[in-house]
Amino acid sequence: MSLLTIGTMAFDDIQTPFGHAEKVIGGACTYISWASSYFTDKIYISSIVGGDFPVEEIEALEKRGADLSGVEVKSNGKTFFWAGKYHENMNQRDTLVTDLNVLDDFNPILPEDYKSCKYVMLGNLTPAIQMQVLNQLDGSQKLIAMDTMNFWMDIAMDELKEVIKKVDLLSINDEEARQLSGEYSLLKAAEVIHSMGPKYLIIKKGEHGAMLFNDGEIFYAPALPLALVKDPTGAGDTFAGGLMGYLAMTNDVSFDSLKRAVIYGSAMASFCVEEFSLLRLKNLTKPEIKERVHSFKRLTNFELD
Amino acid sequence: MSLLTIGTMAFDDIQTPFGHAEKVIGGACTYISWASSYFTDKIYISSIVGGDFPVEEIEALEKRGADLSGVEVKSNGKTFFWAGKYHENMNQRDTLVTDLNVLDDFNPILPEDYKSCKYVMLGNLTPAIQMQVLNQLDGSQKLIAMDTMNFWMDIAMDELKEVIKKVDLLSINDEEARQLSGEYSLLKAAEVIHSMGPKYLIIKKGEHGAMLFNDGEIFYAPALPLALVKDPTGAGDTFAGGLMGYLAMTNDVSFDSLKRAVIYGSAMASFCVEEFSLLRLKNLTKPEIKERVHSFKRLTNFELD
Repeated sequence: MSLLTIGTMAFDDIQTPFGHAEKVIGGACTYISWASSYFTDKIYISSIVGGDFPVEEIEALEKRGADLSGVEVKSNGKTFFWAGKYHENMNQRDTLVTDLNVLDDFNPILPEDYKSCKYVMLGNLTPAIQMQVLNQLDGSQKLIAMDTMNFWMDIAMDELKEVIKKVDLLSINDEEARQLSGEYSLLKAAEVIHSMGPKYLIIKKGEHGAMLFNDGEIFYAPALPLALVKDPTGAGDTFAGGLMGYLAMTNDVSFDSLKRAVIYGSAMASFCVEEFSLLRLKNLTKPEIKERVHSFKRLTNFELD
Repeated sequence: MSLLTIGTMAFDDIQTPFGHAEKVIGGACTYISWASSYFTDKIYISSIVGGDFPVEEIEALEKRGADLSGVEVKSNGKTFFWAGKYHENMNQRDTLVTDLNVLDDFNPILPEDYKSCKYVMLGNLTPAIQMQVLNQLDGSQKLIAMDTMNFWMDIAMDELKEVIKKVDLLSINDEEARQLSGEYSLLKAAEVIHSMGPKYLIIKKGEHGAMLFNDGEIFYAPALPLALVKDPTGAGDTFAGGLMGYLAMTNDVSFDSLKRAVIYGSAMASFCVEEFSLLRLKNLTKPEIKERVHSFKRLTNFELD
């Protein structure tokens, strides 16, 4: 099945204890698209870039089966730019620069064949833009998922809640789940968030894994312990890309399938952080992904007596 | 098989956002013993209390099958006292009072039949006292486990490493594993700690679960998401008690059995935190424990396609 993804395509400048990547390719949409491309090749991308965005990056995504006719290229504008520096423990980071550039004018008009995509992943963006995309869909979708962040909860909670009301799956981190729900217990937070609309909730906990909630059912996928995390940038988007790519490929939104999708998403995220930017994500093989997914099975499997 | 446990028996004063428990029963040894008593009734306790420690608490443990002949009662002394206050999020706490009292004179002399216990759990104590106990064992042990804390790493690292060298299983939290090993990655930390002696390492991550390491093999047991955590005091000791009680009961130290033991320990800890002090731990039934353990299975189980 087809997957529509909307979000940023960006230049990133990333400093971690393991190095400094200057002006590398980033953006939620880019990570989501690369990750999902290992599962489904029917990816429809809606984004905006400046004239400075490398043509070969567009072509590389097209070679993975992505349709980029919905990516606006503002030839006289500059691509969205983000610079950040991670702390020693990699769990926190400081944003050094955010230059919206062309993103400030992002006004996504979906091409006609985008509107009937059965799976939709709304990357983290202004809630108003996420809503604008939802309003253009033809209503035939099987699963609409969204990501967001605390920033929008701080400045646009009401608009954000309107978007949340309309999606099937919300993917946020633990602190965001607590802020959105006003509950500290993630179990209680999930109840509150379900009542806001989404049937499914995924709470991402970074190095501690991810939890999937659905009406009383819970699945907890730990993160794979890694010897080296070089760059956590894009891990959450890569997770979403693996998850949605897997669902679009199987066209199965049962809870059992969603659990597997969380594992595939976690596996893709575990690759993402092993190198800077998209370096690892661009060079994966299917056997590598399969082996990684089996590592998750070995990691958590136990038999009761 | 028999389980020897050594550690504190205490009075606690605990403040959490859910209430204030004044002068309730606490101590590592108490939590370990109560938790393990649901699995094995051959528990040998080595500890020290003052004349103020309630006789009915001693008798209650005896009714659970524990031998307390190795518990010294200093009738003219006062029992170890700890007071602490948890922060709003329950993940951090401030120690308000630590009165060592009789613990200052703790000089454990093991009764003869304690020395051949096949399973040994050294609760968190001065490394010198842990070593004193090790030196009295007859060498027939099947598994010796220990708990410790950052405090001893700060002030007695050399003595601590001597004890660690002699145990089969070390159980510490993630920050302690990082401090002990000097490695941030828990995977690398485990390698370093294995090289210090222990064949098995358990890294406790509180609400994020626990990891078991053994020579390249890893098992990750998530914590059960709970609607309400009233009092985290003793959760780590309860985990150790469930773990060691299960191993002593089954007398099976294979990796598969250790994985199950981690789940049983996690299940017991999940009960512990639901109420203040020992309230929940004293009133469990075997069916409740079985049901809780199956919750862990449901929580993590997935099938690959």
